[in-house]
Amino acid sequence: MNTVERVEAAYARIAGADRPEVWISLREEADARAEAARVQTRLDAGEDLPLAGLVFAAKDNIDVAGLPTTAGCPSYAYTPDRDATAVARLRAAGAVCLGKTNLDQFATGLVGTRSPYGAVRAAADPARVSGGSSSGSAVAVALGIADFALGTDTAGSGRVPAALNGIVGIKASLGLVPVDGVVPACPSYDCLTVFAPDLAGAAAAMRVMTGPADDPASRDRPADVPLAAPPAARAAVPTGANLARLDPELRPLWDAALARFAAAGTELVPVDVQPLLDAALLLYEGALVAERYAAFGAHIDARPGDADPIVAEIVRGADKFTAADLVADQQRLRAARRRAADLLDGFDALLLPTAPLHPTIAEVRADPIAVNAAMGTYTNFVNLLDMAAVAVPAGTAGTKGFGLSVIVPAFHDQVALDLAARYQDVPAPLLAPAGAELVVFGAHLTGMPLNHQLTDLGARFDGEVATAPAYRMYALDTTPPKPLVVRAEDGASLPGERWLLSPAALGAFLTALPAPMTLGSVELADGTWTTGFVANAPSGIDITGEGGWRSHRAA
Amino acid sequence: MNTVERVEAAYARIAGADRPEVWISLREEADARAEAARVQTRLDAGEDLPLAGLVFAAKDNIDVAGLPTTAGCPSYAYTPDRDATAVARLRAAGAVCLGKTNLDQFATGLVGTRSPYGAVRAAADPARVSGGSSSGSAVAVALGIADFALGTDTAGSGRVPAALNGIVGIKASLGLVPVDGVVPACPSYDCLTVFAPDLAGAAAAMRVMTGPADDPASRDRPADVPLAAPPAARAAVPTGANLARLDPELRPLWDAALARFAAAGTELVPVDVQPLLDAALLLYEGALVAERYAAFGAHIDARPGDADPIVAEIVRGADKFTAADLVADQQRLRAARRRAADLLDGFDALLLPTAPLHPTIAEVRADPIAVNAAMGTYTNFVNLLDMAAVAVPAGTAGTKGFGLSVIVPAFHDQVALDLAARYQDVPAPLLAPAGAELVVFGAHLTGMPLNHQLTDLGARFDGEVATAPAYRMYALDTTPPKPLVVRAEDGASLPGERWLLSPAALGAFLTALPAPMTLGSVELADGTWTTGFVANAPSGIDITGEGGWRSHRAA
Repeated sequence: MNTVERVEAAYARIAGADRPEVWISLREEADARAEAARVQTRLDAGEDLPLAGLVFAAKDNIDVAGLPTTAGCPSYAYTPDRDATAVARLRAAGAVCLGKTNLDQFATGLVGTRSPYGAVRAAADPARVSGGSSSGSAVAVALGIADFALGTDTAGSGRVPAALNGIVGIKASLGLVPVDGVVPACPSYDCLTVFAPDLAGAAAAMRVMTGPADDPASRDRPADVPLAAPPAARAAVPTGANLARLDPELRPLWDAALARFAAAGTELVPVDVQPLLDAALLLYEGALVAERYAAFGAHIDARPGDADPIVAEIVRGADKFTAADLVADQQRLRAARRRAADLLDGFDALLLPTAPLHPTIAEVRADPIAVNAAMGTYTNFVNLLDMAAVAVPAGTAGTKGFGLSVIVPAFHDQVALDLAARYQDVPAPLLAPAGAELVVFGAHLTGMPLNHQLTDLGARFDGEVATAPAYRMYALDTTPPKPLVVRAEDGASLPGERWLLSPAALGAFLTALPAPMTLGSVELADGTWTTGFVANAPSGIDITGEGGWRSHRAA
Repeated sequence: MNTVERVEAAYARIAGADRPEVWISLREEADARAEAARVQTRLDAGEDLPLAGLVFAAKDNIDVAGLPTTAGCPSYAYTPDRDATAVARLRAAGAVCLGKTNLDQFATGLVGTRSPYGAVRAAADPARVSGGSSSGSAVAVALGIADFALGTDTAGSGRVPAALNGIVGIKASLGLVPVDGVVPACPSYDCLTVFAPDLAGAAAAMRVMTGPADDPASRDRPADVPLAAPPAARAAVPTGANLARLDPELRPLWDAALARFAAAGTELVPVDVQPLLDAALLLYEGALVAERYAAFGAHIDARPGDADPIVAEIVRGADKFTAADLVADQQRLRAARRRAADLLDGFDALLLPTAPLHPTIAEVRADPIAVNAAMGTYTNFVNLLDMAAVAVPAGTAGTKGFGLSVIVPAFHDQVALDLAARYQDVPAPLLAPAGAELVVFGAHLTGMPLNHQLTDLGARFDGEVATAPAYRMYALDTTPPKPLVVRAEDGASLPGERWLLSPAALGAFLTALPAPMTLGSVELADGTWTTGFVANAPSGIDITGEGGWRSHRAA
């Protein structure tokens, strides 16, 4: 299927799906076809377009040039003349946008029913809610219309709909994906997210969108972030009391998910995470609601009839809070961040249900605020406490969808993705370019005695490599045994492994390296040079002919 | 002078100085003598106490066990049973506290007159203000009573009094010095500072106080901070228009200070920094004043008669701001941070006058709010925009004190200290332990062709070193010429230089290192091992006998 055919198939699927409430504005098919044709031309010219052939949908609080942005409120609509930076990056990488999707108005809700454009029905059961606020985007992916879709997430909007519709949602650390061109919901805690059927698809889009931008909320990744979950990962899991709100019908799915995690090699340790869950109260019952008022309260005040009544009620709740109240709540939040860090110290991640229930639309209508609040039990705290999460499906109970979230500290996104991939038993894609490389040939190879020195530093296995045919290997008489790799005119191509690590981790590795080992530049079989174990001159016994260190040790 | 004699001399100086308004509570001399005696005992037992023999004063919004903390408001007073963490660290390092100093009430002011304990007079001219809010601490140092003194700084309180009293003030990046046990003024923007007669004294105290703590405001230094100002530093300096508020009598001092900076090798580039100066309006004219209300407004509301009327008026100004107003101002601040970063991109620092004027007490009394606001013209924005500063004296005009501030982005504190030291033509002390070491022997030595590869990475020269007498040196035929250093039984002690750099910088240095150079572990003359240029085996011409690379190149 070429890029144009992919677009045609998507529009056919839209027509066949009969879910008009998914879209607030659909792009003209001719426009999308024309863009796809231009992508095909670039591809044919040899351009490297990592997202060519993919179609996507954008939540209607994210600007796509030429399509109205409504944020779910018709009178708020404006038509931007440029794409949000994240959208522009996707299109530059070859992805074609199909249109703008429905949402809980002003991204305020976790249900998908708070929209004048209609309640979005769950992909698998039209009687149930889709979850929100990124409702239409999640269903567009779950129905197989879009290859991926953009959401936003302040309190769980990029994760809850993933859980309820059986797809993946990645909510990266605040500041990694630019949010310019996105209608703010809570400007201090908003981020742009992605849904896809699988981790690889979500990560591919995330990789393209991530990176510094001219956006005040943008943050650089620190120079010492871990680039991999360690092989012997430890995850905190909630106690039974923390799961009080979990629908008993979903509980077996949770238990099964944990069993699968444990089987995949992650040590699970129950931790009472109630202090984290309690931080959610700050988001909805404290002065932080003023973030929402500041974002769109003036519009609601000016056009009260246009607002969803529930959304309006929530936002008007900001009235009663003074600036000093907000300072006090922000200080409470800062203290909560510290407590959360202490509580999760020593863990690679926290595992939680993504949502504790999957209500019907009728159930939400009967008690719209309480049911919505319950939906966010396990997601609300994440942005507030500056954490990142990857939400993956974890089965269904009847037509109730259920998902699990892997939650990590800010900038440990790759660790969350790795653990989610282990759970799904799929390869973990790399979310962002690595900072540094190190090629190893001996005791640091996977399974060898010093390999833990790499994994302890958050280094990531990046595959087997071979040197240029210009190196010889010598066995040293050390404990543990190690080889020396030396450049030589009569050399061979030696097998090794490439590891990716942060610049700070590479510096720390070098600092800890004992004599006589040295690091320098090594030529690989493809003619590129990279950093690795290399020495200037022979020492020990020449084992070049043995075909590498593994063969030597096996012999 | 032993530690007890130092305490006795301080009390004698207090008695002789006749500046009772400097102190809110003075410690019993017998107590201080007893503590000094205990320090002497520890010293005599061989303990390493970097601050032994020094006496200090603490601003009276910082807890010292057993002395009341008033924050300049008698009815607010409480007597803590433990020291603030920063104070505890100083005492553990051997410094002895003399007492608690006067301040603008609740650290709200830059003048030193807003206190029921009396207006603090400038050290050199009792008719002029001391500056504030850390008024008593600055004067205690300037009068030679204390070796150093603690202040706090939200809007300039740790810098303005330094300028007006001819001493040094270091305001480190937010979060580096713990603020537990400090009465908040604006909890999001407060930090604890130090005054001393010179950079070395201030840095010694700062080095002891800095570091992670169980304090929600605590922040770790990133893994990639520069550890030195580059040799060819570039500093932004204000335009003439930015200096509109500078007292014309002080202007020649400013021009002379810049000339001295330029003579010390720093390239000065005029930049219109009005956007930074305008951020000050957010602190006093916007909703951020609610930070102060949240900190101590309830006390002022409950005991209105106890408050300084100016301080009360300022804090009550928070009444009119809603939580949504504060969100909006915080978003403006975030945008201002971004603009500031863009404006100063490519510069190592920004130089500004610390204060634009040095008024008399009578001038302040005549127009207390306007004069105070003018005082903060060049300091107010620094904490708001998450920057750090080192304030150094820059001469006097009559009895008017004048100072200059070296202002840097968060965590570039060492760069500011280095530039201030160049300006003063004194050695720059190290503010914090370095992350990594690298010993170089050849082309990376100071003055050699590749030395810039170190300085470009923010590496810091840490002195000449010699290897253990177990290495030989060989001259390679490379461009530029480089040596190999190889461990050998018949080796010599080779001269080199030790450089300090962040872990990330060391990783980046290694990543850029071309073959055949290698890095590994090197034994120094003192028997310790560190990271350096070392190779496994000879190549090139043996030059061991030439006494090192410099001698070889000179020959």
